[in-house]
Amino acid sequence: MADAVLFEFLHTEMVAELWAPDADPGSGGKKKSWSVLEGLGFRVGQALGERLPRETLAVREELDALKFLCKDLWAAMFQKHMDGLRTNHQGTYVLQDNNFPLLLTMGSGSQYIEEAPKFLAFTCGLLCGALHTLGFRSLVTASVTALPACKFQVVMQKS
Amino acid sequence: MADAVLFEFLHTEMVAELWAPDADPGSGGKKKSWSVLEGLGFRVGQALGERLPRETLAVREELDALKFLCKDLWAAMFQKHMDGLRTNHQGTYVLQDNNFPLLLTMGSGSQYIEEAPKFLAFTCGLLCGALHTLGFRSLVTASVTALPACKFQVVMQKS
Repeated sequence: MADAVLFEFLHTEMVAELWAPDADPGSGGKKKSWSVLEGLGFRVGQALGERLPRETLAVREELDALKFLCKDLWAAMFQKHMDGLRTNHQGTYVLQDNNFPLLLTMGSGSQYIEEAPKFLAFTCGLLCGALHTLGFRSLVTASVTALPACKFQVVMQKS
Repeated sequence: MADAVLFEFLHTEMVAELWAPDADPGSGGKKKSWSVLEGLGFRVGQALGERLPRETLAVREELDALKFLCKDLWAAMFQKHMDGLRTNHQGTYVLQDNNFPLLLTMGSGSQYIEEAPKFLAFTCGLLCGALHTLGFRSLVTASVTALPACKFQVVMQKS
């Protein structure tokens, strides 16, 4: 019984709990669910960031910080590396995971693609929170074209 | 960076989110928070239970099931064993953890003892959910006398 499944099960149940169907469409329920999950992820990302080895905290190059997310952070969370990292060299980065573990339970293809965003909110916040601890302000969004692959887009904010 | 901290950080933030101060004391807010966290734990415990090796699922003696929680389940979650297991031989079991990881951030002693229950609800549900998968109905409660030690009381329900 692997420890990693504990995190994945807890994440799944937390999404189910916080993404409850909203009785009043006018109250911005889904938007609120997204930001609650994103906020949770941000704080967990910050906390994970504070556990980093000192050498990593000395990272000051954007690209090194992104490589850290793709390798060390992904390994700690999902026991693997991100599958791809691209940049336009102007502060925008696209991180690709071809088998994102938090989407694996949804099966493959596009049938349930509308349900995917709720499983990405926590991780968007987490990436943003980890970058924050490394000293970078960012906006992180996610997109899915075919489950269980997804892309995270990180846009660095100039301070 | 250990994977285990990921679960602990997520648990901490989930408690903070779901145990929000309640504006209306009449609405049973804290009671609802407890049952939401307990329900989340129950479902995670069931899911973990379904990942057990086949030999374990063949457990049919109460005491074997409890030993499984104290050793295998605790090791998978917290990388250690429970510190003590007692029974009155009439279906009541007391599981003692002298350094319960989900209470460690609260410091020692009795200063914050009133805050402790919210950090135990998820685990009470989880123990109950894992027992459910093993084929046992139970009621699980927790108590704290001095942080970070705690006791889980399991009362087996006759079917």
